[in-house]
Amino acid sequence: MWRAGVLGATGYTGAVLLSVLCGHPDINIALITSNTHRGKKISEVFPQFRGRLETPLQATDDDHRGTCDVYFLCLPHGVSATQAKALFDGQALIIDLAADLRFEDVALYERAYMAHPAKELLPHAVYGLPELYREKLKGARLVGNPGCYPTSAILALFPLLKHGLAERNVFVDSKSGVSGAGRDAKVGNLFCEVAEGFRPYSIGVHRHEPEIQKELAKVADVKVTFVPHLLPMNRGILTTAYGSLTQYVPTAELLHLYREAYRDAPFVRILDEGAYPDTRFVRYSNYCDIGLKTFEDGRFILVCAIDNLVKGASGQAVQNMNIALGLEETRGLMLLPQYP
Amino acid sequence: MWRAGVLGATGYTGAVLLSVLCGHPDINIALITSNTHRGKKISEVFPQFRGRLETPLQATDDDHRGTCDVYFLCLPHGVSATQAKALFDGQALIIDLAADLRFEDVALYERAYMAHPAKELLPHAVYGLPELYREKLKGARLVGNPGCYPTSAILALFPLLKHGLAERNVFVDSKSGVSGAGRDAKVGNLFCEVAEGFRPYSIGVHRHEPEIQKELAKVADVKVTFVPHLLPMNRGILTTAYGSLTQYVPTAELLHLYREAYRDAPFVRILDEGAYPDTRFVRYSNYCDIGLKTFEDGRFILVCAIDNLVKGASGQAVQNMNIALGLEETRGLMLLPQYP
Amino acid sequence: MWRAGVLGATGYTGAVLLSVLCGHPDINIALITSNTHRGKKISEVFPQFRGRLETPLQATDDDHRGTCDVYFLCLPHGVSATQAKALFDGQALIIDLAADLRFEDVALYERAYMAHPAKELLPHAVYGLPELYREKLKGARLVGNPGCYPTSAILALFPLLKHGLAERNVFVDSKSGVSGAGRDAKVGNLFCEVAEGFRPYSIGVHRHEPEIQKELAKVADVKVTFVPHLLPMNRGILTTAYGSLTQYVPTAELLHLYREAYRDAPFVRILDEGAYPDTRFVRYSNYCDIGLKTFEDGRFILVCAIDNLVKGASGQAVQNMNIALGLEETRGLMLLPQYP
Amino acid sequence: MWRAGVLGATGYTGAVLLSVLCGHPDINIALITSNTHRGKKISEVFPQFRGRLETPLQATDDDHRGTCDVYFLCLPHGVSATQAKALFDGQALIIDLAADLRFEDVALYERAYMAHPAKELLPHAVYGLPELYREKLKGARLVGNPGCYPTSAILALFPLLKHGLAERNVFVDSKSGVSGAGRDAKVGNLFCEVAEGFRPYSIGVHRHEPEIQKELAKVADVKVTFVPHLLPMNRGILTTAYGSLTQYVPTAELLHLYREAYRDAPFVRILDEGAYPDTRFVRYSNYCDIGLKTFEDGRFILVCAIDNLVKGASGQAVQNMNIALGLEETRGLMLLPQYP
Repeated sequence: MWRAGVLGATGYTGAVLLSVLCGHPDINIALITSNTHRGKKISEVFPQFRGRLETPLQATDDDHRGTCDVYFLCLPHGVSATQAKALFDGQALIIDLAADLRFEDVALYERAYMAHPAKELLPHAVYGLPELYREKLKGARLVGNPGCYPTSAILALFPLLKHGLAERNVFVDSKSGVSGAGRDAKVGNLFCEVAEGFRPYSIGVHRHEPEIQKELAKVADVKVTFVPHLLPMNRGILTTAYGSLTQYVPTAELLHLYREAYRDAPFVRILDEGAYPDTRFVRYSNYCDIGLKTFEDGRFILVCAIDNLVKGASGQAVQNMNIALGLEETRGLMLLPQYP
Repeated sequence: MWRAGVLGATGYTGAVLLSVLCGHPDINIALITSNTHRGKKISEVFPQFRGRLETPLQATDDDHRGTCDVYFLCLPHGVSATQAKALFDGQALIIDLAADLRFEDVALYERAYMAHPAKELLPHAVYGLPELYREKLKGARLVGNPGCYPTSAILALFPLLKHGLAERNVFVDSKSGVSGAGRDAKVGNLFCEVAEGFRPYSIGVHRHEPEIQKELAKVADVKVTFVPHLLPMNRGILTTAYGSLTQYVPTAELLHLYREAYRDAPFVRILDEGAYPDTRFVRYSNYCDIGLKTFEDGRFILVCAIDNLVKGASGQAVQNMNIALGLEETRGLMLLPQYP
Repeated sequence: MWRAGVLGATGYTGAVLLSVLCGHPDINIALITSNTHRGKKISEVFPQFRGRLETPLQATDDDHRGTCDVYFLCLPHGVSATQAKALFDGQALIIDLAADLRFEDVALYERAYMAHPAKELLPHAVYGLPELYREKLKGARLVGNPGCYPTSAILALFPLLKHGLAERNVFVDSKSGVSGAGRDAKVGNLFCEVAEGFRPYSIGVHRHEPEIQKELAKVADVKVTFVPHLLPMNRGILTTAYGSLTQYVPTAELLHLYREAYRDAPFVRILDEGAYPDTRFVRYSNYCDIGLKTFEDGRFILVCAIDNLVKGASGQAVQNMNIALGLEETRGLMLLPQYP
Repeated sequence: MWRAGVLGATGYTGAVLLSVLCGHPDINIALITSNTHRGKKISEVFPQFRGRLETPLQATDDDHRGTCDVYFLCLPHGVSATQAKALFDGQALIIDLAADLRFEDVALYERAYMAHPAKELLPHAVYGLPELYREKLKGARLVGNPGCYPTSAILALFPLLKHGLAERNVFVDSKSGVSGAGRDAKVGNLFCEVAEGFRPYSIGVHRHEPEIQKELAKVADVKVTFVPHLLPMNRGILTTAYGSLTQYVPTAELLHLYREAYRDAPFVRILDEGAYPDTRFVRYSNYCDIGLKTFEDGRFILVCAIDNLVKGASGQAVQNMNIALGLEETRGLMLLPQYP
């Protein structure tokens, strides 16, 4: 049994992470923290855990070194790196669900976010997208868990770009459920501001755009145009990506390439020709469903669906943990999608 | 390992039942049937099962005797009893999720539903509400799984009535998510007829009223007024019940009585004074959360929340199976509520 | 043309009030205020008004005496009465959408809310439920606009109680869309806390209970038990009320009594026997739909649907204005319900 | 007063059309038909009209020639043209909300739909997008009302293409509320199949793609890639379109071009730089909101929001009627968006 700690557990990623860890056969939840709710039991903050997880919340700001084998940081950007620095000793595994360990290039991080409070950590961190970096993750002790949008966009585009099949301009139209915006009290996320409405936001300035761009630029000359939209639902991201092929590849053949690319990826499901993803069929699971279509004149359409809180955050964090600790990648993660 | 069969699996109760059985460590899904979709794989009908459950669907109307240890009937009222009759041999366990085995009194069934096609089965059937009939369920081979509304209403009211604490008139105001209405194509269940709206239905004529009434009348002189309402959401039932006490019992004391009454019931959670159930905190789980309040002048309010497809249908069916087969009651059923 | 002012216009009641006033043929919107957004145009806060209403917002706290013929106060409880006091001169009509002018009995207000900042106004104020107080409203200059739940509960119960037909205990189970909770940033009203969930709240302590109780107690010996619930939708209240008749009255006869009671009420629609209200068919309108059923053993069920922001707030405010100013009661208010 | 008839009024476009016509000062609703519901009053099918519109439904198949000045056909594709043929006499105005009069090119219609039952009408028909064909619509007697998606896509792209500013490949990512799918009982449109989910559909085969393509191809060499998605909400379409400019035009300058292009279009609102449309702020209105952004490297993003049932169907039909009959274009159509 490994001892796990969740720091900053009272947001949505924390709730989902605790839920996944509760069902993980090799994990003992040894530490849960929240500065706001310290002293309360986690089941008082999240009553779904009544009778199942009654751990009292400790202060995030206390010294928690040495108490866990793996620490999950569900903290605000900036705060997260400071904690990672305090906890990093080369022994314990630290998985950061904020953005602080996602960028190798400090300047890029600082343009998108803020002054980086612990840039000396960056050379030790692995970008935690297992489908791309499985080998690097084995034995890693510092993992930057990807953003939710980047997870969907990169997994959708990676095989195509890797094979040099896409022209430079790629248009990524993403739609996310509201839980991606977190649990802070903001007018824009009130029920009445979201239900029965649909809108794009942060066009040209969303922080996930450089994250998508820097990963894809590693394998191809690409310029990503990314537009996120807010869906009137709790969970799920669907990304539809468009562009032009450098050479025509029939749909069936491209699907074959994708199946090959993700042959060892237990959570990526490549759909049959003519079928396309639906967030309904991945929600509450760690699956990433991908479908696609090409046209003889060279256009392509890629569609990718994930649950933003599972494969897009907490499930992927546990997947990273499994790989880093040498456990089976799917351990504790064979969650079935819940529908209806 | 027990071999399980699900007959009529392509509705919502079927989907949820298969999902629960997939995670049950002692169950092998040996048979899935659907007359409409025979020949297809279940993952073609329910793509959430892609890569997890690819069983081909057999015709419901074929002879399935001897192929399973437990049969779950997710069939229309009337059809269900005919199947139960064909399969019932005193060996295999048959759990009917329709209404056909819920009523000891044929006349009552026939007034609410139709001519009963297999009334000779009724003396062998146990009403599958484990919190009331756990002893009878042990070793049972014919189980009538309760309705979703009755599960919530009976569990909310039973201890109060059992102790003779309620005056005759009890008002049961229930609200259900749309999945309770099934997966048939009906205009009234279209998204645009339900979303952003709320309405009562079947006032005075809902078939679950006699089911609630007959169970509660076994322990008290009671007249149930039942009004169901349709909630613009997928899953969950919340029942609020009102009436007058025969004698004043403080809230804390009544909560104590409820805790005693459900001491052996692993899925009933009695909340603390001042807390009330929320379907959010039971959805996708087999829990039944109950909260209550009394007033010095003798009025009482009871509130009960379940997931209509789990504790209100398929989860409860598996709970009944566990008990009937001598397994641990919670086996395969410790599903955590999913929120957000 | 009458000059209207809306103070505190940037909440949901403000938005709806402005929308109704925009369509009112006798009204000129002369003043819109908001301390938070002063200086902005209303269309910057509420982009639905782009190209239609571009009025700049003034500070609420400035002196607005003499600038309008009618002032609508969409301000917080407590703040509202202070403004009303400043503006009240016996000439201008003041309609308060907060609770400050709803209670004749200061003690009752103060138990439910806070110390009353302008109790000397109360003898001048009329409770703005036109169906009960139409005569008093004619020429009134100080109106306390009713709460949303009270509007639905009182209109549902009034004729029954007035005719002495109900036993003392009346159980009022109300369900409201989220807009009733206002536009403040609170975690409990975030999309993810509300969507796909349903819960009661403020059981036994909701401030609308004494408001309902005091109005109904004027015509009958009654004890109201009121439980509000939060619906996962934007707009609409449905109230279901239960109790026992003092003497049996057939459904058809009671419907007749209701039609008589509301003969002069242009916005109350009494449904036919067997039909019940649905919030779908009143939303975005000022209608109040009522249906009911009685049983030979003396039980009754009443169902009432309104749009909480129209008949439950801003529409009713304009209805009160029409009556107070001597205009046609339906002037500018013949809004058709919007469905789907 | 003009006499209007609505044929096939019991779907969603019928409901919205009747609602708009009810509020139109120059219209008398003289005829409402439905083969399915003949004999009932419209308020029995759509209870929102109780007390407002109680017209009995006549059979659609009867002979209605000479009874109206304007006929709106809300009938299935194919059926619609047959009716149009029967009613067309050069006097009465006929507005078809199906697809039968949208294509000048019969072959194109027949590839997307079916054998055309009245192709001789096509030379007389005007494509009813007033922002493009206002002059042609004046005095027209046969109007093919555009599809909902095409309305949003064409209005978004037209000025850009007209000025020769876009490279050939244009990617149109559209998202629609469920009411666009009509009111037929289909499993795919059930609440539980749509709520809390999001999916693309009809990729590469949607019938609105050739409609968009043929209109835009009139002004530019363009290849439209169109992917529609189903939003878990009732009303609204948001279209996001992507592509490359033939030459860089700054955002502000392009916005200026759009304002010029729609200078005479009372329902098109071009937003300020940095602002983007939200379906919330157009729903229940006839507005079309457009925002856009360009990048120095030549990429562009266009965003357009409409209410699919108003500007995307029934509101636009009334707009076409106003123009054809010589009324003010905005007559009866100054509906304010309803939010929340």
